[in-house]
Amino acid sequence: MIAIEHLRHVDAAPARAARERYRAGSVAPTSGVAPGFTQANMIVLPRDWAFDFLLYAQRNPKACPVLDVSDPGSHATLLAPGADLRTDLPLYRIWREGKLAEETADARAAWAEHPDLVSFLIGCSFTFETPMAEAGIEIRHITDGSNVPMYLTDRPCRPAGRLHGNLVVSMRPIAPGRVADAATISGRFPAVHGAPVHIGAPDEIGIADLGKPDFGDAVRIEPGEVPVFWACGVTPQAAVMASGVPFAITHAPGHMFITDIPDSAYHA
Amino acid sequence: MIAIEHLRHVDAAPARAARERYRAGSVAPTSGVAPGFTQANMIVLPRDWAFDFLLYAQRNPKACPVLDVSDPGSHATLLAPGADLRTDLPLYRIWREGKLAEETADARAAWAEHPDLVSFLIGCSFTFETPMAEAGIEIRHITDGSNVPMYLTDRPCRPAGRLHGNLVVSMRPIAPGRVADAATISGRFPAVHGAPVHIGAPDEIGIADLGKPDFGDAVRIEPGEVPVFWACGVTPQAAVMASGVPFAITHAPGHMFITDIPDSAYHA
Repeated sequence: MIAIEHLRHVDAAPARAARERYRAGSVAPTSGVAPGFTQANMIVLPRDWAFDFLLYAQRNPKACPVLDVSDPGSHATLLAPGADLRTDLPLYRIWREGKLAEETADARAAWAEHPDLVSFLIGCSFTFETPMAEAGIEIRHITDGSNVPMYLTDRPCRPAGRLHGNLVVSMRPIAPGRVADAATISGRFPAVHGAPVHIGAPDEIGIADLGKPDFGDAVRIEPGEVPVFWACGVTPQAAVMASGVPFAITHAPGHMFITDIPDSAYHA
Repeated sequence: MIAIEHLRHVDAAPARAARERYRAGSVAPTSGVAPGFTQANMIVLPRDWAFDFLLYAQRNPKACPVLDVSDPGSHATLLAPGADLRTDLPLYRIWREGKLAEETADARAAWAEHPDLVSFLIGCSFTFETPMAEAGIEIRHITDGSNVPMYLTDRPCRPAGRLHGNLVVSMRPIAPGRVADAATISGRFPAVHGAPVHIGAPDEIGIADLGKPDFGDAVRIEPGEVPVFWACGVTPQAAVMASGVPFAITHAPGHMFITDIPDSAYHA
């Protein structure tokens, strides 16, 4: 990937405009928004949990490719100068003792509870939807104007310290003649989940019913289409639940942080 | 890259044999040893420093691509079942208050000083020397039977917590007609430093004399050859020195840990 300091010339006006809308209170999934700018999952944890999480990410790089980590107590990121991670995502989830306590469009009150929060920004598969669409592969949830469907699998992640949990995947139905193209194109973007982890046979990864996603919305699957599964940045939220993490702030699934970084920077 | 669990069929006898020699006391640089098996840099730190270092690695991925991290107190690694990180490298350096205190072929005594050491294994550019040599690119330090030359540059790494320091690079002189091939081939292996960070003009990164490397041995440079510089896994040792880290164990430059993982696993 290209080092951030070489990207200062990129005019990130569409990304900034989207963040400003969310800061002003707009709430909606971000798939298809500010196309060409990399989107990120977020998990924010007290400093005491930061090593466990960074190690969990290192050990599960398909699900948790780390794009940036803030300094403790900071709500800024190198990936979008001037952005405020407490307000610039459309929707947040506040977690207490491993349980979803609240959804909010403004995380400032929750953020103020801990002086030493560390924010992790994690690659999002929305990033490679743009080159897939440019290659003529239909992205069904964009066509239908819904959120991407996400499923909790029965595949355990490699644990790290106090953190454990199963893999979460996103799913896109793809025509059989384009599955290889979808794998190849997404595989060029390892920092945003890369190639699929599973193609076809949902039951083999513990998904009983594609019509009932654990996160996001169900999508139409046309006859003959193959369900293609990518590792998903909601995996940290599954670990928060499974591990009973005392306090965390995350994005709400599908409601990502939009960075100033062009997708091409993460092309392998 | 390919997940480790899919590599159990690989017969790693040459890697095991090399580790057994080092465990028995043999001391020599590892470039060219057990070709086809991935080699790794190592830095071992007390648990209190582990988050700072893992964050330093995340923020400086060209220099510090993390391949595995041990659990605190463990001297085992997923990358070589049965290996002992305290004895299976040919030569170690023990660091105290940021200064090199000792070189030893057996780190067990130093390891016993701290109950909670965390070991970081970091990709090594020796890994892509095999495909470069297969493509007909001469690797001068292998031809001449010496250690690769390494230099401390004037380029600061992105700091993390208490850790800061400059980038260390390895150098290989390459014929002008093969520099692009060397960049392309190494670029296919981002987990082991990937493409060069600098090509030609050593003075522009603060290297005054190629004949006087800061680590390893000087090598012959034939007329017309271009010095090509790759980010180097000795960069953590420069951070140990610059930051005055109280205690660390590392490999000695050029004396790597040989894993059971085939190089092809790290092909992008």
